[in-house]
Amino acid sequence: MLTSDRIRVAQIAEQLLYRKWRFGTAESCTGGGVAAICTSLPGSSRWFEGGLVTYSNAMKVNLLKVPETVLETVGAVSEDCAAAMARGAQQAMNCDVTLSVTGIAGPDGGTREKPVGTVCFGWAIGKQLWTETKRFTGNRTDIRTKAASYALVKLAVYIQS
Amino acid sequence: MLTSDRIRVAQIAEQLLYRKWRFGTAESCTGGGVAAICTSLPGSSRWFEGGLVTYSNAMKVNLLKVPETVLETVGAVSEDCAAAMARGAQQAMNCDVTLSVTGIAGPDGGTREKPVGTVCFGWAIGKQLWTETKRFTGNRTDIRTKAASYALVKLAVYIQS
Repeated sequence: MLTSDRIRVAQIAEQLLYRKWRFGTAESCTGGGVAAICTSLPGSSRWFEGGLVTYSNAMKVNLLKVPETVLETVGAVSEDCAAAMARGAQQAMNCDVTLSVTGIAGPDGGTREKPVGTVCFGWAIGKQLWTETKRFTGNRTDIRTKAASYALVKLAVYIQS
Repeated sequence: MLTSDRIRVAQIAEQLLYRKWRFGTAESCTGGGVAAICTSLPGSSRWFEGGLVTYSNAMKVNLLKVPETVLETVGAVSEDCAAAMARGAQQAMNCDVTLSVTGIAGPDGGTREKPVGTVCFGWAIGKQLWTETKRFTGNRTDIRTKAASYALVKLAVYIQS
């Protein structure tokens, strides 16, 4: 686990505790990596509610209520899906703040429009919602690690704004 | 991530694919670490359905249907809770095979009966169910890492039996 990730989580935790907000994650390609970073911090149960690793489309639909039309039209790796995952996570876990990650970690699964390394993110704070698409380079581990870090970097920014 | 964990996951994946079984995790103290190890393997979407990081008791009750009486009597760190988590994960994620981890990673939260390092596990394969309690030593990271590895070591044994 990267030291910079731990520092970021400590910053996020401070804001969540100060505002009495509960936090949860909805992850696909990072596979629980963001939740694992968050809970590496002692005392994280004071602000970390839980995480949903919705690896299959069925889990995205059943647990996060991602509309099937989103999966059928723009696909699971899309900002629409990331937005629905972040909103669904707020509902499913009764959280004030959530983040979502859905992407293609590789080595297979890439297409011309969505090459390996394409990752879509969602961040929800109360009624506010942000989404973003990034392209990361490297192997499967690199892409997953970079995606998890980025999800936390941007959450730290949004939560202080 | 430990190399031995990756090897173990590859063994488990082979069995899951051969038997056409879907797999899911229910984690508390490991916080998504087991799911992250599983999904580090390329192609894991062919057998990994998803994971529920039920860090709060509310999530254990709402998503995994752990009976509140279990939490009130023997507590979240108990084989009864681990068993209910593994069974609840089968239901919630429509999985054939699940594992659960619930424990005290520290540094706080330990008691005389359940010191820091106490971790309860559950493994469910179809109608079969196994539970076990272990005491791991070391710091928070050590305990979480050892617990995640142990969950996979025993799953590899049970799935081949």
